[in-house]
Amino acid sequence: MDQLIELLSRLPGLGPRSARRAVLMMLKRRGQVMAPLAQAMARVALDARDCHHCGNISTEEICPICQDPVRANGEICVVEDVADLWALERAGVFAGRYHVLGGTLSALDGMGPEELGIPRLEKRIGAEAISEVILALPATVDGQTTAHYIADALAATPAQITTLAQGVPIGGELDYLDDGTLGAALRARRKL
Amino acid sequence: MDQLIELLSRLPGLGPRSARRAVLMMLKRRGQVMAPLAQAMARVALDARDCHHCGNISTEEICPICQDPVRANGEICVVEDVADLWALERAGVFAGRYHVLGGTLSALDGMGPEELGIPRLEKRIGAEAISEVILALPATVDGQTTAHYIADALAATPAQITTLAQGVPIGGELDYLDDGTLGAALRARRKL
Repeated sequence: MDQLIELLSRLPGLGPRSARRAVLMMLKRRGQVMAPLAQAMARVALDARDCHHCGNISTEEICPICQDPVRANGEICVVEDVADLWALERAGVFAGRYHVLGGTLSALDGMGPEELGIPRLEKRIGAEAISEVILALPATVDGQTTAHYIADALAATPAQITTLAQGVPIGGELDYLDDGTLGAALRARRKL
Repeated sequence: MDQLIELLSRLPGLGPRSARRAVLMMLKRRGQVMAPLAQAMARVALDARDCHHCGNISTEEICPICQDPVRANGEICVVEDVADLWALERAGVFAGRYHVLGGTLSALDGMGPEELGIPRLEKRIGAEAISEVILALPATVDGQTTAHYIADALAATPAQITTLAQGVPIGGELDYLDDGTLGAALRARRKL
């Protein structure tokens, strides 16, 4: 039981205290919550694998998005992480395929172009007749360095390289925005 | 995977968003985190049982506290919940045994004396030669109603019935205390 609490408390968003509460709640409802959760977890741990094409995590060798012929629309969206892919899929705003970097370029962490699968991405552009690569990378220094590196690496390919727009978020109040975002939104202003 | 997220998000302290983050983190470290966690959970779900004597949850029919002859010191501490028992054990302030009610008296929730194991507690007083029953119940209306009921039910037994002291918590500032606590602390004042 202590081992279970220790393991649970390592999850993001859970500390020792909330892990204890979670375990107690599960213990009280052993049949309905704990056993199914353990089962689902064991099954996912066994079945989950990285998609050979895009780096998405699914239960198949090739993920459902890469298998879906409808999504072969000539667009690849490059994201840092599977979490970002999930966020885009939840929003339902992108109809093409993905390339998951699994991180950003970082000499310290030993993340080079090879680790991020950039050669693999380059090959896909010819193989899948990609016309546009959308860089959906975080607006951080590391994210933008990686974006520029990828843009350079793919400069010789026929694909157009684009990046997400920056500006005021929907529902965002100017008052609470940082100067960088305000500046970017002003520079990228458009005609109404 | 969706099922796993759904199950995880039912745990206290986790919502859909943090459950997703937890699953992603686990997916990235399938071998080190996810598989051991699933195993530990399945083992606990299978092995955990309520102690026949006190209602504590452990992996044995009789919990380690009830098995330990050193803890047969004639004191039983009555708590609402296993969480409270764990809290007292962590504090290391009580050397006797416990009785876990598993709730408080509540006609609405169908919690009567039988459900709270009060007849079982009464029998233990003679069988284990208990000299003191300490009621460590929450300072709420339900908790105090239950405490009074238990005190009445055990009035005919030789055991002395006591309850936790109420007052200013250690490190507590008077300024921030509610009136009820301040009043209780003043009424229970003692000579220095």
